[in-house]
Amino acid sequence: MAMLSRIENGWFKERPTLWPGQAMSLEVDTVLYAGKSEFQDVLVFKSAAYGNVLVLDGVIQVTERDEFAYQEMITHLAMFSHPNPQRILVVGGGDGGVVREVLKHDSVQEVYLCEIDETVIDVAKQFLPSMASSYKDPRVSIKIMDGAQFMSENQDFFDVIITDSSDPVGPADVLFKPPYFEKMNSALRQGGIICSQGECIWLHLDLIRPLLESCRLIFPSVSYAYTTIPTYPSGQIGFVLCGKSADTSFSNPHRVCEPGSAIQKKLRYYNHDIHKAAFVLPEFARRAIAGEKEE
Amino acid sequence: MAMLSRIENGWFKERPTLWPGQAMSLEVDTVLYAGKSEFQDVLVFKSAAYGNVLVLDGVIQVTERDEFAYQEMITHLAMFSHPNPQRILVVGGGDGGVVREVLKHDSVQEVYLCEIDETVIDVAKQFLPSMASSYKDPRVSIKIMDGAQFMSENQDFFDVIITDSSDPVGPADVLFKPPYFEKMNSALRQGGIICSQGECIWLHLDLIRPLLESCRLIFPSVSYAYTTIPTYPSGQIGFVLCGKSADTSFSNPHRVCEPGSAIQKKLRYYNHDIHKAAFVLPEFARRAIAGEKEE
Repeated sequence: MAMLSRIENGWFKERPTLWPGQAMSLEVDTVLYAGKSEFQDVLVFKSAAYGNVLVLDGVIQVTERDEFAYQEMITHLAMFSHPNPQRILVVGGGDGGVVREVLKHDSVQEVYLCEIDETVIDVAKQFLPSMASSYKDPRVSIKIMDGAQFMSENQDFFDVIITDSSDPVGPADVLFKPPYFEKMNSALRQGGIICSQGECIWLHLDLIRPLLESCRLIFPSVSYAYTTIPTYPSGQIGFVLCGKSADTSFSNPHRVCEPGSAIQKKLRYYNHDIHKAAFVLPEFARRAIAGEKEE
Repeated sequence: MAMLSRIENGWFKERPTLWPGQAMSLEVDTVLYAGKSEFQDVLVFKSAAYGNVLVLDGVIQVTERDEFAYQEMITHLAMFSHPNPQRILVVGGGDGGVVREVLKHDSVQEVYLCEIDETVIDVAKQFLPSMASSYKDPRVSIKIMDGAQFMSENQDFFDVIITDSSDPVGPADVLFKPPYFEKMNSALRQGGIICSQGECIWLHLDLIRPLLESCRLIFPSVSYAYTTIPTYPSGQIGFVLCGKSADTSFSNPHRVCEPGSAIQKKLRYYNHDIHKAAFVLPEFARRAIAGEKEE
């Protein structure tokens, strides 16, 4: 198992793929699973400080301790920006965490999870039950297939599409390209919204800037936000949000998560103020995305 | 040199002191300095991706690539919250980065740097010139002494005190205790403001919460903010801000850093919007600091 070689002296060291020269290490308690699926290396271990950890192709995907930051933000930034989200598509996200978050909205009637790698779903059911237990909800349908293919078969159908992908190397590369965003646009119905994993402003502005420019040619509303999360490279990750309607305002969302509300009580990272703050970028990133030069 | 042992196979791995089970690693190009000062182990290396890196007692203090995030935020959150900051004290911060940021404000007349470990200043002058060159400014006085001692000798004197400390283990431990905050309060003149390095909400809520409670017994205005920074544990670090006047509003600062202004052009992380957003905490941290229980 190739990825077991990344564990030395009781520590797992992440493989620097798109972040040369830096690596996060986590102390390993026990290896729970190590195998190779049709698409990628899959490793699950119990860590000393972050609970169970899922690793794909040497890159940390989720840890039980901090996954809520990512899952809540990629989900609720989109969901609260939509007035009445009923039909939801999650592409990737085989761990089930995004589905869990989507189901917290009472308006939701149908959730489709489109994951290309069934092994991810299987190991999540076994080792990440706080995420994968969401699959038991009767509103959820699991499709083991390519997300773009599923969208082609369901045009003008979804209110929200969330793409919870790994990094743009290997199987997820196509999910960062304009044709995929065009497919999402066609699969949305009126007023629909997409939110895609958007890499990190500290590492990937050269990828983020052209991606946002492409999105602006496809969608009338485009914005970029981020969340902090300790176990992703550089401690944060961003999101690309696009709306099919020109009047979607992401940083001032349609619905407000009220303090003390039933849904707020289920959330550990997201609140209405952090939603708005998530769109405020440090000056270097703001300038780069706006196409301004650094002084 | 004890800290050289933290470099293996060309990678430096941070010593997990207050963050068990996780460690940041940086690829090493060349070791530039390894020694032991009167107070701590001192290591400087040229990294593959983050420029020159200063390490004290096995913990990353600054890297040339991302230091601006920390230096700008710990400095300007305080400086812009004060209407007319003239006399500034920096405790710790021997690398010179905070002094560099303080000097960007035209109102500043005197800056005192109080660093207990002269070795840090010396290695910064040699290996971190973009930070330490600030020492050449005639408004700057360097004091190699204990910060609390210097404050005892200068009561009712400073407009802003910035404590740029290492973590609360070893020489910096006292800088996180109530007596030190009382000393800062006495050393401030009317309307004065302090900003102290305040650890990380992902790791140290058990330290942050009682620290803020202590501060509220000493200062009429107390607030907590944070910045992202890839090479600090979990990718972010917080700040404790306190004001001697009850009317200091940190999240709505007295002076606005206008887009396009001379000072904004010198800043790469800070802007007025990120100042306000820095005080917005994720729900779990907001609840913990407010003393609410998680559901």
